[in-house]
Amino acid sequence: MSKLRFRISMSLDGFVAGPSQSVDNPLGIGGMRLHEWVFPLSAWRAMHGLQGGEVNESTRVVEESLVDIGASVMGRNMFGGHPGPWDAKKPWNGWWGVNPPFHHPVFVLTHHARDPLELEGGTTFTFVTEGIEAALEHARRAARGKDVSLAGGASAAQQYLTAGLVDEMEINLVPTLLGSGERLFDSVGDDLHGLELVRTVAAPKVTHFKFARR
Amino acid sequence: MSKLRFRISMSLDGFVAGPSQSVDNPLGIGGMRLHEWVFPLSAWRAMHGLQGGEVNESTRVVEESLVDIGASVMGRNMFGGHPGPWDAKKPWNGWWGVNPPFHHPVFVLTHHARDPLELEGGTTFTFVTEGIEAALEHARRAARGKDVSLAGGASAAQQYLTAGLVDEMEINLVPTLLGSGERLFDSVGDDLHGLELVRTVAAPKVTHFKFARR
Repeated sequence: MSKLRFRISMSLDGFVAGPSQSVDNPLGIGGMRLHEWVFPLSAWRAMHGLQGGEVNESTRVVEESLVDIGASVMGRNMFGGHPGPWDAKKPWNGWWGVNPPFHHPVFVLTHHARDPLELEGGTTFTFVTEGIEAALEHARRAARGKDVSLAGGASAAQQYLTAGLVDEMEINLVPTLLGSGERLFDSVGDDLHGLELVRTVAAPKVTHFKFARR
Repeated sequence: MSKLRFRISMSLDGFVAGPSQSVDNPLGIGGMRLHEWVFPLSAWRAMHGLQGGEVNESTRVVEESLVDIGASVMGRNMFGGHPGPWDAKKPWNGWWGVNPPFHHPVFVLTHHARDPLELEGGTTFTFVTEGIEAALEHARRAARGKDVSLAGGASAAQQYLTAGLVDEMEINLVPTLLGSGERLFDSVGDDLHGLELVRTVAAPKVTHFKFARR
């Protein structure tokens, strides 16, 4: 069966976004520090049409994370914009412009119904109001045998983790402190809900911990 | 100059002790899980007069952490017992019995004056009421050119970290969740106070992150 795969960058003190997240600063104060390790990589640059870049221990991890993904699920906060009902006149269409980097069906968890949003490059956003299991089911069907990516944010991740629905989790641990913001493991409890560490890769600016289902 | 060196085991969600710490359960609920990686090691067993055991990537890290330490500083909570003034009739003498594993002078941060406590095997506990810098100064003099170990707990570590007084920090990151308890990096802020990652060692059940002063 297709797996639900989750990857996220986290600070040494457990934050996946800094404080004061906003439309202008979706990662919160300092949150960009969690992602600086990826930008110099040739694997990342190639995804964005850029040439050159570094190859290091992270390369294989980034490449692995991209293959065999056929659909995504994400939380409303990750999709972004504003809380509450969708603005009918100027609906928020995501952070990613007219050609988002997904290139596959994306299912957005929300309490507020909305028609699907079809953008360029094969990305469609479908809004699911029936909860995390329904969204995952939709995504699995849309993935046609490939895996489903849990794109975030923290709240959606916590719900899927706690429900024991995550099959693979890659934590990119960045050796920095954010001090406050959004914690990945808030209200997840004191165990990994069936996941165990299967691989550690230490790169210069990040360490990748891969967890999988026992 | 002699360095202040700090090493501690921490869960993936940032805890160095579980909830409900007590005299009967000093590590809190689940806290022992943070230390299970060390017990099978021959390097740890030899320290405790036991033969045999494993050798793996952690061995060198544990051995390194033990050399060239001439004195320790620790917080009152680490020394343990009870809060407030010392009980004059039945004073708490630490967790470690009549022959503690330090075998060197230990300086305990406290708000309550008390005479030094000399135990077997070269361990003396000296109680310092003048604050973290005074305790470090005492320890440096007592270490006679060797380094000083910051033995914990979390609150003492936070004070030394925030004051920029820690020269080396080894985080033994254990891929488990405690969910609640005592966080290492609470109120430390959003930077590492002059420390930067200098070495990562991935062992089967723990990853060792070594930070040093820039």
